[in-house]
Amino acid sequence: MKKTLPGSLLAGLLCCAAPALAQHRILGFTDTAATRQLAWEDRFDQQLSAEHIGANIREFSAFPHHMGSARGKAVAENIREQFKSYGWDASIETFQVLFSTPKSRVLELVGSSTYKASLKEPALPADATSGQEGQLPTYNCWSADGDVTGQLVYVNYGLPDDYEWLDRKGISVKGKIVIARYGKAWRGIKPKVAQEHGAIGCIIYADPFDDGYYQGDVYPKGPFKNENGVQRGSVMDFVVYPGDPLTPNVGATAHAKRLDRTQAPNLLKIPVLPISYKDAQPLLAALEGPVVPAAWRGALPVTYHVGGNGARVHLALAFDWGLKPAYDVIATFKSAQYPDEWVVRGNHHDAWVNGASDPVSGLSVMMEEAKAIGELAKQGYRPARTLVYCAWDGEEPGLLGSTEWVETHGAELQQKAVAYVNTDNNGRGFFEAAGSHALQPMVNEVMKGISDPETRVSLWERARAKEVVDAASAKAKKELLETSTLKIGALGSGSDYSPFLQHAGIPSLNLGFGGEDAGGEYHSIYDSYDDFVRFKDPGFQYQRALAQAAGHITLRIADAVSVPFDFRALYKTISAYLDDLMSATEAQRTNTEVENKIINAGDYALALNPRDSMQAPPVRAEVPYVDFAPLQNALVALQKAADAVAAKQATGAGDAAFNEGLYRAEQQLLVVDGLPKRAWFKHTIYAPGYYTGYGVKTLPGVREAIEQRQWKEAEQQVAVAAAAVNKLAAHLQALAK
Amino acid sequence: MKKTLPGSLLAGLLCCAAPALAQHRILGFTDTAATRQLAWEDRFDQQLSAEHIGANIREFSAFPHHMGSARGKAVAENIREQFKSYGWDASIETFQVLFSTPKSRVLELVGSSTYKASLKEPALPADATSGQEGQLPTYNCWSADGDVTGQLVYVNYGLPDDYEWLDRKGISVKGKIVIARYGKAWRGIKPKVAQEHGAIGCIIYADPFDDGYYQGDVYPKGPFKNENGVQRGSVMDFVVYPGDPLTPNVGATAHAKRLDRTQAPNLLKIPVLPISYKDAQPLLAALEGPVVPAAWRGALPVTYHVGGNGARVHLALAFDWGLKPAYDVIATFKSAQYPDEWVVRGNHHDAWVNGASDPVSGLSVMMEEAKAIGELAKQGYRPARTLVYCAWDGEEPGLLGSTEWVETHGAELQQKAVAYVNTDNNGRGFFEAAGSHALQPMVNEVMKGISDPETRVSLWERARAKEVVDAASAKAKKELLETSTLKIGALGSGSDYSPFLQHAGIPSLNLGFGGEDAGGEYHSIYDSYDDFVRFKDPGFQYQRALAQAAGHITLRIADAVSVPFDFRALYKTISAYLDDLMSATEAQRTNTEVENKIINAGDYALALNPRDSMQAPPVRAEVPYVDFAPLQNALVALQKAADAVAAKQATGAGDAAFNEGLYRAEQQLLVVDGLPKRAWFKHTIYAPGYYTGYGVKTLPGVREAIEQRQWKEAEQQVAVAAAAVNKLAAHLQALAK
Repeated sequence: MKKTLPGSLLAGLLCCAAPALAQHRILGFTDTAATRQLAWEDRFDQQLSAEHIGANIREFSAFPHHMGSARGKAVAENIREQFKSYGWDASIETFQVLFSTPKSRVLELVGSSTYKASLKEPALPADATSGQEGQLPTYNCWSADGDVTGQLVYVNYGLPDDYEWLDRKGISVKGKIVIARYGKAWRGIKPKVAQEHGAIGCIIYADPFDDGYYQGDVYPKGPFKNENGVQRGSVMDFVVYPGDPLTPNVGATAHAKRLDRTQAPNLLKIPVLPISYKDAQPLLAALEGPVVPAAWRGALPVTYHVGGNGARVHLALAFDWGLKPAYDVIATFKSAQYPDEWVVRGNHHDAWVNGASDPVSGLSVMMEEAKAIGELAKQGYRPARTLVYCAWDGEEPGLLGSTEWVETHGAELQQKAVAYVNTDNNGRGFFEAAGSHALQPMVNEVMKGISDPETRVSLWERARAKEVVDAASAKAKKELLETSTLKIGALGSGSDYSPFLQHAGIPSLNLGFGGEDAGGEYHSIYDSYDDFVRFKDPGFQYQRALAQAAGHITLRIADAVSVPFDFRALYKTISAYLDDLMSATEAQRTNTEVENKIINAGDYALALNPRDSMQAPPVRAEVPYVDFAPLQNALVALQKAADAVAAKQATGAGDAAFNEGLYRAEQQLLVVDGLPKRAWFKHTIYAPGYYTGYGVKTLPGVREAIEQRQWKEAEQQVAVAAAAVNKLAAHLQALAK
Repeated sequence: MKKTLPGSLLAGLLCCAAPALAQHRILGFTDTAATRQLAWEDRFDQQLSAEHIGANIREFSAFPHHMGSARGKAVAENIREQFKSYGWDASIETFQVLFSTPKSRVLELVGSSTYKASLKEPALPADATSGQEGQLPTYNCWSADGDVTGQLVYVNYGLPDDYEWLDRKGISVKGKIVIARYGKAWRGIKPKVAQEHGAIGCIIYADPFDDGYYQGDVYPKGPFKNENGVQRGSVMDFVVYPGDPLTPNVGATAHAKRLDRTQAPNLLKIPVLPISYKDAQPLLAALEGPVVPAAWRGALPVTYHVGGNGARVHLALAFDWGLKPAYDVIATFKSAQYPDEWVVRGNHHDAWVNGASDPVSGLSVMMEEAKAIGELAKQGYRPARTLVYCAWDGEEPGLLGSTEWVETHGAELQQKAVAYVNTDNNGRGFFEAAGSHALQPMVNEVMKGISDPETRVSLWERARAKEVVDAASAKAKKELLETSTLKIGALGSGSDYSPFLQHAGIPSLNLGFGGEDAGGEYHSIYDSYDDFVRFKDPGFQYQRALAQAAGHITLRIADAVSVPFDFRALYKTISAYLDDLMSATEAQRTNTEVENKIINAGDYALALNPRDSMQAPPVRAEVPYVDFAPLQNALVALQKAADAVAAKQATGAGDAAFNEGLYRAEQQLLVVDGLPKRAWFKHTIYAPGYYTGYGVKTLPGVREAIEQRQWKEAEQQVAVAAAAVNKLAAHLQALAK
């Protein structure tokens, strides 16, 4: 059995003279500084109250409080006052941003069978806030206005591969309305791809296979989506740019220059509506045409047909479009030592409805950290760097508050921001971290020093155990049994780190717990306090644990003698991405060659059932050998530079210029022109996928060119990424001198 | 595009002097003999009428005709008369076999929620025979009588792995009633494993995920199982022995010595009942307890719980037990040349209900062959060996007619039978052959000479195209693109070849078409002529194609100068089985070692949700190195012997002694004592799996010992298999001299 963290050791940390601690080292700290830091962390932990976090969750989620609502403003003001009460400087920074809310919504089957969708989530006696006034109706923000009637086509998850199958089946969605199920990729990809294929409207529903009774008992008996639950959510094409659609690259201040709404390149031209599976079932049951492949079938008790030649639907949507105020709450705890080095910490405060989990859980965690830091200050704690705690508005519609703030303060942030630490909805189970890989060793250290509430081993040991048990092969399990470092994930999008990391190059992390909090409340009226205390984190212990983790990380970055970046970890990570990409390209070459042979041999025509309409896939151009050498060579330079910097860090170097060099290193990975088709995204290592949305694409310029079989662009992007890595290597080499 | 077989070439075959044909060689024939044979095959084909096969299907399936029914006897007599009308000697050989039919059936939920199962397949206007008198009710033949009440537990497919999960979850089925879904393994495994685990009753249902609306439109709109359809079927433990449960190893003649029924080791002690998914849904919906894992969930619109602590059911079943006559129709076409060398061809005639597909399609194909051979005889054809065509009774309850016949005539068959060629229900699509691998090259040759009705390429080319398209990896696809030989499958059980091959060592084949005839009619009242002509093979063209294939194979074996066995193919096949087994053992060793490490490290305890009751898997004894060398050495000997025999065959050797040596070679692979726990099964290379039923286990003694982690038995069985292979090698070496 695993050892638990001995309480006596933690208690002992306060006693600075304990000789055992003199040997304890944490990244970026001298022995003495480490001892002091661990002692402050222990005092920090003592200030954290699970109960108080729970009280804040209840308070912030007491009413619907979406951006632009009176309750939303009240929550922002409440947050500002809490910060102030904890001794922070706090104020609200307001932006004027576009935001759409529904005026009218109609969806009905037309023709022989008729059905009018209810489009309504009912109140439940077991959920106290589910019947409140002020709820936004079920809708997808940024849907176009529209009144369309057309044949309905079921398009599975609505991703490019699905349309390849439809093409082979000879089914077009041009001039038709598609119905796609939630899942596999971010929701906004579905209407975007539908629009690219000529659809005139898009319906999205949660199939019970992915999110409903197939997964487990439904709310309120269990946590999963009941037949009336609907996932609201943005369908802005944020992979082009997030934030206010009218003010790309600049802050949406009152007098900012704005695009005409019809010209905003990240807004859809077709109407989109999310519905419940109860509303979806009659539509799906009405479809005729071929039966869909097994991978397309959900868990409704119908045979899933593709449609396209029978059932027709009428979809009519109208929205209020107008500028609304977004209230970012910005709280600072200024340092005297390095006032112009900022550690930025953030979580959004706006919710689609009550949002007890999303975002209130993470928000309440962040407020608890602020409270504890205020208490520490009373005990004499002074951070070495300035802390900037931010509660963002308008995250749900498209990272509005954070993006506008980063766009407004971009130059200053690139000068001063050491790192950005993000949280959002937080569950229960296993600690999950993702972000800038130079921070990976520090994150591992922090995980090893915090105890898991359920098992009392460290967060690190529990996360490793989970990875071991879940690993796909005996080989992978063996390696994980022996590892001392867990890999952190890479960031795509889906929360407020995106503008910091991918637009401004600020080293970023996103933190949270998950794995034991599955449910279907996301973006519905049932994301409530009642749901949270029954199914998410009943005792708020994992909320407290997140406050520990985010707090320790924030304070270590704030107090380190040498800011805790290790570029050797970044080097290894990028190398692994490149290896993976080269293998994938090789596999793509072999597969293309073999598939072309099979197609040309006529084997598909023989293998396919002649009574089906299925066609052979198209022959594809052969995959050329791509010259990855520039990137391979750049990585050699990065490895040397990272080693040199690490050697200098080991000497205890920690002057301001050196630290500035360390924390501004990640900016070297940006390219001025950004990624192909989306100049706002400037990071050459991490980006949300053009056709995955939240899902990350690493080495995105190169990877997406290869995936989309754009060979010339792939080689150009290899050069671009190699230049960025070389720039980072040169920067680090200069720093190491 | 593929070339179709040129009609002019086929037409030309009749002209024996065509010089191109002198070059055409087929296995076992001299050039001259090959020319003559191909000409007869062409004349044979000309006698085959798809329409006539269809008429027979309609006639034989006109009424329910299960074993022991008056209609069953009438069908046997009709078959006998048809044989006679085609010029064959034909008679009925009768056995007296045990057979159970239902007297009463009750299944109901007891307690707070109540539901009484309907246990009824209703007549459908679209299916003319579905409302007939004389249908056997829905039941599992060989269920025990019983009246039990107990808590209900859902056990997924009811296989040993499923009980391992239940064990980890702390759920016992002891004293309870289980509900398992059809699929993954043969139905009879489910009550057998349930009984092994202490269950007192077993319900089996077809989940719509596996067999119902999830797969496609349901009958009569489409071919898939509607909510009322039920799969009847035997639950005799035929992997111990098939045939009459009271007369293992001997024919069930009128005066045979019989076991007491309660002592028959292949009969269950618990009641078992199959039900529709409409009847299953209220039972599953009533279950409480943990939600089952994703792999256990079906397509009913409920959350699948495991139960075991709530809903209770009452299951009461009583059966008529008594001896019934089984009427095997045996038709012979005696050869003057080698009258005591028999080529045996068979298909059963009994059905669970009307059985248009199962077995009437294959039966009608076989009758068409007999008709064509009769016509050929009028044109002067005389087979070199005696043809024995058999229509078996009582296949459905457990291969009764064929097993009793083989047991009765075993010694004579081992002396005279060159091979056994089986068919059963036949569909549409791709030609599938399985059986004795020494026949693989001949089967490939035959496939290359018959045209696929839908695409006009050869059966071989179409089957290869399907294998190429479906292959799992680019590597496998590449190999298949270049192969000249398709592998035939290995035979487990499920039709009448089992006693021939696995008890008597008669080289056997099972033939049929499939892949484009999916449906849910199997063993239900909807396996009707109406279903067949709409969804199986509407024009009967694939029935005609099967008559070609089975006819060509039968006639080639009958007429070959040197009977067409190639033991090099058998050698390669057994070698591949051994390689696979050695890799599997190696993987088992690595996995056991790693899993034990993980369990001992306590990682499961950390990775599992503490709010679940799930336990870590148990530590298992380490996997020792098994000595496979005896079998490896035996295979070296077999390779040499097979090469030597092939060299002799190439000289055109074909005297009677040599041929007898060839066709009796497979008997060398039998062992007198049979397989562990089931002495009736004597073949060391092929057997139905002890826990898969129909599914084959190759090198079964060794493989099952390894799977069940019986290391000592594994080494013993390596020795047994090695001795059998050595015996075959010595036999072939002697023959080659």
